[in-house]
Amino acid sequence: SLPRGPAMRCSPLNLCEYETSKLVRIKSVKLGSLKWALNGVILLVICIMLLWNKEYQEYDLVVSSVTTKVKGVAQTNTADFGEVVWDVVDYSPNEEKNSFFVATNFIVTKKQKQGKCPEVPHYGTLCRTDNDCKKGLWDIRSHGVQTGVCVKFDVTTKTCEVSAWCPIENTKKPPRPALLTSAENFTVLIKNNIRFPAFNFIRRNILPEVDGNYLKKCIYNQRTDPYCPIFRLGDVVQGARENFADIAVEGGVIGIQINWDCDLNRFFNSCLPKYSFRRLDEKESNRTLYPGLNFRFARYYTENGVESRTLYKAFGIRFDVMVFGKAGKFSIVQLIIYIGSTLSYYALVSDTNQIRVVKQSKKKSLQEVKPLSLHPRKV
Amino acid sequence: SLPRGPAMRCSPLNLCEYETSKLVRIKSVKLGSLKWALNGVILLVICIMLLWNKEYQEYDLVVSSVTTKVKGVAQTNTADFGEVVWDVVDYSPNEEKNSFFVATNFIVTKKQKQGKCPEVPHYGTLCRTDNDCKKGLWDIRSHGVQTGVCVKFDVTTKTCEVSAWCPIENTKKPPRPALLTSAENFTVLIKNNIRFPAFNFIRRNILPEVDGNYLKKCIYNQRTDPYCPIFRLGDVVQGARENFADIAVEGGVIGIQINWDCDLNRFFNSCLPKYSFRRLDEKESNRTLYPGLNFRFARYYTENGVESRTLYKAFGIRFDVMVFGKAGKFSIVQLIIYIGSTLSYYALVSDTNQIRVVKQSKKKSLQEVKPLSLHPRKV
Amino acid sequence: SLPRGPAMRCSPLNLCEYETSKLVRIKSVKLGSLKWALNGVILLVICIMLLWNKEYQEYDLVVSSVTTKVKGVAQTNTADFGEVVWDVVDYSPNEEKNSFFVATNFIVTKKQKQGKCPEVPHYGTLCRTDNDCKKGLWDIRSHGVQTGVCVKFDVTTKTCEVSAWCPIENTKKPPRPALLTSAENFTVLIKNNIRFPAFNFIRRNILPEVDGNYLKKCIYNQRTDPYCPIFRLGDVVQGARENFADIAVEGGVIGIQINWDCDLNRFFNSCLPKYSFRRLDEKESNRTLYPGLNFRFARYYTENGVESRTLYKAFGIRFDVMVFGKAGKFSIVQLIIYIGSTLSYYALVSDTNQIRVVKQSKKKSLQEVKPLSLHPRKV
Repeated sequence: SLPRGPAMRCSPLNLCEYETSKLVRIKSVKLGSLKWALNGVILLVICIMLLWNKEYQEYDLVVSSVTTKVKGVAQTNTADFGEVVWDVVDYSPNEEKNSFFVATNFIVTKKQKQGKCPEVPHYGTLCRTDNDCKKGLWDIRSHGVQTGVCVKFDVTTKTCEVSAWCPIENTKKPPRPALLTSAENFTVLIKNNIRFPAFNFIRRNILPEVDGNYLKKCIYNQRTDPYCPIFRLGDVVQGARENFADIAVEGGVIGIQINWDCDLNRFFNSCLPKYSFRRLDEKESNRTLYPGLNFRFARYYTENGVESRTLYKAFGIRFDVMVFGKAGKFSIVQLIIYIGSTLSYYALVSDTNQIRVVKQSKKKSLQEVKPLSLHPRKV
Repeated sequence: SLPRGPAMRCSPLNLCEYETSKLVRIKSVKLGSLKWALNGVILLVICIMLLWNKEYQEYDLVVSSVTTKVKGVAQTNTADFGEVVWDVVDYSPNEEKNSFFVATNFIVTKKQKQGKCPEVPHYGTLCRTDNDCKKGLWDIRSHGVQTGVCVKFDVTTKTCEVSAWCPIENTKKPPRPALLTSAENFTVLIKNNIRFPAFNFIRRNILPEVDGNYLKKCIYNQRTDPYCPIFRLGDVVQGARENFADIAVEGGVIGIQINWDCDLNRFFNSCLPKYSFRRLDEKESNRTLYPGLNFRFARYYTENGVESRTLYKAFGIRFDVMVFGKAGKFSIVQLIIYIGSTLSYYALVSDTNQIRVVKQSKKKSLQEVKPLSLHPRKV
Repeated sequence: SLPRGPAMRCSPLNLCEYETSKLVRIKSVKLGSLKWALNGVILLVICIMLLWNKEYQEYDLVVSSVTTKVKGVAQTNTADFGEVVWDVVDYSPNEEKNSFFVATNFIVTKKQKQGKCPEVPHYGTLCRTDNDCKKGLWDIRSHGVQTGVCVKFDVTTKTCEVSAWCPIENTKKPPRPALLTSAENFTVLIKNNIRFPAFNFIRRNILPEVDGNYLKKCIYNQRTDPYCPIFRLGDVVQGARENFADIAVEGGVIGIQINWDCDLNRFFNSCLPKYSFRRLDEKESNRTLYPGLNFRFARYYTENGVESRTLYKAFGIRFDVMVFGKAGKFSIVQLIIYIGSTLSYYALVSDTNQIRVVKQSKKKSLQEVKPLSLHPRKV
């Protein structure tokens, strides 16, 4: 009474046999509802995640190029140097790829020449006799190399003499208020070209639909002019929740973030820059030993064959332009991969259900469970 | 007639019970073929994806270091300055980590001194009387701070006087053709050292098998010399599908992409740089208000104690060297993870088959389906 | 004898039917143990991977900002220039965002003026008569543009005359030992502020618990002072397993890696910087044509209206500060996703078990397998 048919002939190869789980169909409102409810919930979760995280999309990261151009002039009037006008070449000595520096405060030391002069007095340079100094000595805070001689610094103080650029920069603290607080009104044009290589998509932050006359006059404002690429430095600093007059004294680092979140699908097409500002370095200058941002540069001259220089200790704000970006586009491959990855959750549900069914049947009656053993014929 | 054996003794702990799906073996050429065909297709797809995407590999991203060295001299002969020779120090004033700038065009303003002079005439600076000017005023396009006086700019025009570096830079448009069009023949040596930390693998773009004499003379060419690290600037610009004489006038940004796609497996070992070039900024200068790339720098002098400067507005090309890289190596862990992730697709197939079988059996005869209910004994 | 109940009424919609695999419960110590052993092993592997790779965590990458400040002075005493003191403005002419350059060796060419002079002799510039030279010619190694005249370079050699900055830089090889080997004792303060945007977490490498007096004096040491942000350049180079005196001659690139591996969970909270150093460029100078790192810069002067410059070929070390970072925090969503992704492995086990059971039953007796066919009633 074995089932015989054409399939039996190919049994050695096992190719025409088909094994599958034996299904049990239970007519039960409770179990049926449970199954459909569970499946429904999972499907809902999967669909919500699909739409929410846009799992059906292929993504690409941005390749970006940034150029910046600062504009503005400032005038200072100090006792030492009289009226001086500062333009962009003076206060922005460095050009960098993704950042620009605007000096807002200066300590200027004019007419430095190579020579010998008394070191600035601090612990370790004070002396009474030549024996307190040592030829060739220098440490981290030195401005020159000691000559081994003890000389008068002023009427009351004697310090070790050093070979250095003389006279030595004397002031420690930057002027308060900052010399170039009017830098607040300087503007910067940021040109940002982006590209999503995978989609061969290019765009720039000067939007094509924007009018030329508008661009000549506009200033970025989050609400009224969110797509103007010209920024007032004061607004940028304020956007980072800082006070320009404060940060101008000792300097700092401000991040200008440009965020491109692009949807390149035909119907939801959108790709616009979003600007945000944030201070990147430590704010509280009293909590740290080395506050703010400053660096030194010099202009070198020669007079009658002797080289001299003007030393500038420039305190200022470095603006780091950081471009983030992601573009998404519908991709059938991504959709299939996502669906595949959700299948295991369905498997989980059917496993759970199996367990439930067995427990259920146990409670009902013992003899109904017995046939489920591998030896049903023995009953 | 319950099955009794040694297993019965440990039933309270349930440890020696084993539950599994009851399998149904169907002898059917149709179903058997279907099953094998489906499994075969899935296996094929999985294997193709495995080999195509090299899913059996572990990946690491590149850590890169770039240094560049530009060579070349150019001679200009202008009415204003006579014969001038420009070498790399003159036309490449900035050194940066991953990019270099080559100035190709200049607007030079000599002998600027701090002082007072009439502003360049444009809308807002023209005046008739002193009342049209306002002391302390300046805007984005100003070159200095207004003194409140209206002075003669030339025979026909009067403009507001400003405190500024005088004389003010006058020319707006860059010379055409560019002064240093011969920069096309300059060369740049790009040294790129890469490292894949995960594999402790280092390499440089000056390949070890390349001959020293070859390196002294070679120039990169995509077809004939694809591994020469010395590039002619004209070739780079041409590789980015731009015309050097055009881009030289107003400047621009060109990306030099170095792509390392490395296979570090023993038998397919390959790790060679691939160069490609691309313009990164907007091309059409007429479509945009702020075309090209330029910045200002100055050389400061002092004569008889008075500081003066020569202002250079340099138009030029910034070359951004961008290094991309990925190395793959066979990893048994990756292979297992990949295989694991494909299992859910198999689960899908067996689920689909289950449904198929049930539908099939329904059509055949109703009484054959009935025994599949949970109460087979009641039949 | 069909099962009848309230479920039958809704059969057309199939909503109250429930299909599940028919389970077989086998009482067998062998199979039961196998099942539990397999499940246990998988659970163990999954749990180990969960804890080891911290799969239960959500991750975010670091956003970083770096500022650096080099300190130190050096004195050189050469036959050409006498005693000269170098401070940071002299030896570190470039400021960059994530890197700083310290010149350690110089070739200085003083008092260059625009003019005509004999080219430095090398292959291609030697000549006997004016016919060997060609007006307007220059190549990669030229220092100027040929005038077409053959002039005396020294008593024995004649070279083509060039329009150039004269006199031409003559020395090829850098001084040995390097002029500023004492740069070894220079120090650099590295300020690194990091941020994990997803967790709104900020931190800096100057740790809040560190004492101000300690910071004033400390020097980084991997064992004794691992959190001091001030580094002695000699230590950094030694940490990269290089000899400072060697690298100082021709220059090189050293990477300073700051690694932030942060655990932001409440109980395992830790977020400390870890420093490591590594040479980024090729070490062996004899294996390569273009060893080390050098670039040229100039200081421009004017005397009696004639511009001149001092040309510096600076060999030195560029220190690239590279910040890597990852922060993890427990995330219930990540845990669910991870558990979901492991389910397919369980599915694999139950599939494997199914096959095992069938094989087992085959061996036992043929008639026990037969009931597994779709037509059990026909037996």
